[in-house]
Amino acid sequence: MEKIYLITDIPGYTPQVSRLLSMMNYARYTTLSAVENLTSNQLDFLLDEDSNSIGMLLLHFAAVEFAYQVFTFEKRDLNKEEEAVWGPALDLGEAGRREIRGHELSYYVDKLNAVRERTFELFKTVGDDWLHQEEAFWHQKPGNHYFMWFHVFEDEINHRGQIRLIRKKLKV
Amino acid sequence: MEKIYLITDIPGYTPQVSRLLSMMNYARYTTLSAVENLTSNQLDFLLDEDSNSIGMLLLHFAAVEFAYQVFTFEKRDLNKEEEAVWGPALDLGEAGRREIRGHELSYYVDKLNAVRERTFELFKTVGDDWLHQEEAFWHQKPGNHYFMWFHVFEDEINHRGQIRLIRKKLKV
Repeated sequence: MEKIYLITDIPGYTPQVSRLLSMMNYARYTTLSAVENLTSNQLDFLLDEDSNSIGMLLLHFAAVEFAYQVFTFEKRDLNKEEEAVWGPALDLGEAGRREIRGHELSYYVDKLNAVRERTFELFKTVGDDWLHQEEAFWHQKPGNHYFMWFHVFEDEINHRGQIRLIRKKLKV
Repeated sequence: MEKIYLITDIPGYTPQVSRLLSMMNYARYTTLSAVENLTSNQLDFLLDEDSNSIGMLLLHFAAVEFAYQVFTFEKRDLNKEEEAVWGPALDLGEAGRREIRGHELSYYVDKLNAVRERTFELFKTVGDDWLHQEEAFWHQKPGNHYFMWFHVFEDEINHRGQIRLIRKKLKV
């Protein structure tokens, strides 16, 4: 926590990987701050019938991070079993509203921590050269691993903004 | 645009500055996509009386970026004149709701572009060593310039998430 406002080296990781992880760590810290002390009912609250609950968004973060682990480190898409587990959280929308509810905050935090622990392990196995590897990505334009993992945390920050807005408007 | 999904070198900037600017550029690209074709009425729309309009959030991005230019490159706070210009957009809330309205999208985009152009110029004058300089920051913990500029774009992404949510719920 003394280093939470530093984008800097982290023992065990190469310089660019360290900077990326510094940003991911700060994003996660603010996510967890944004949901502190929410009850199960509050985590399930919907602004309206087309909206995502805060619980859905939390599980979305874990799902996106898991999907990018598979996509960038194993170079494959999710298989059927993984899709069954993570699909509703990945896609959000109707299936998410139906299936992701009734949990306490600790349920989501445990999932987030478990996926993040694996991310920390995986990044120990690669260096800055890996981050800069490019391949065809969205719209057939080149994307590098750095961008793909930047996207993981920028998606989290995007939805954290929504979580803060939803939290202000909770009616439960 | 061919490099929009690459976090990589940019001519005229040092390696870490380039990576930071790559992320800032992508964040801005998604911000502008999120507000494309919005009318003046839509930019003024409020979800409720305590909310920020999309127009307010757009001007907030320019204000935050300007404030961090002053804070990190000139090592001072905003003066009275600057505070008068940017205060309502920086603080959001009541003054912002009263003062920031009635503008077309181009008004906001012009402000964003003008501030960003200055950022591009300022970053030509510094290198990676500057990014890693530390000083006392929030809560008297150390922060480095890299973190401060990361915060500029992570604040934008946070509110871009809110813009996307507000846009889906527009009633004008």
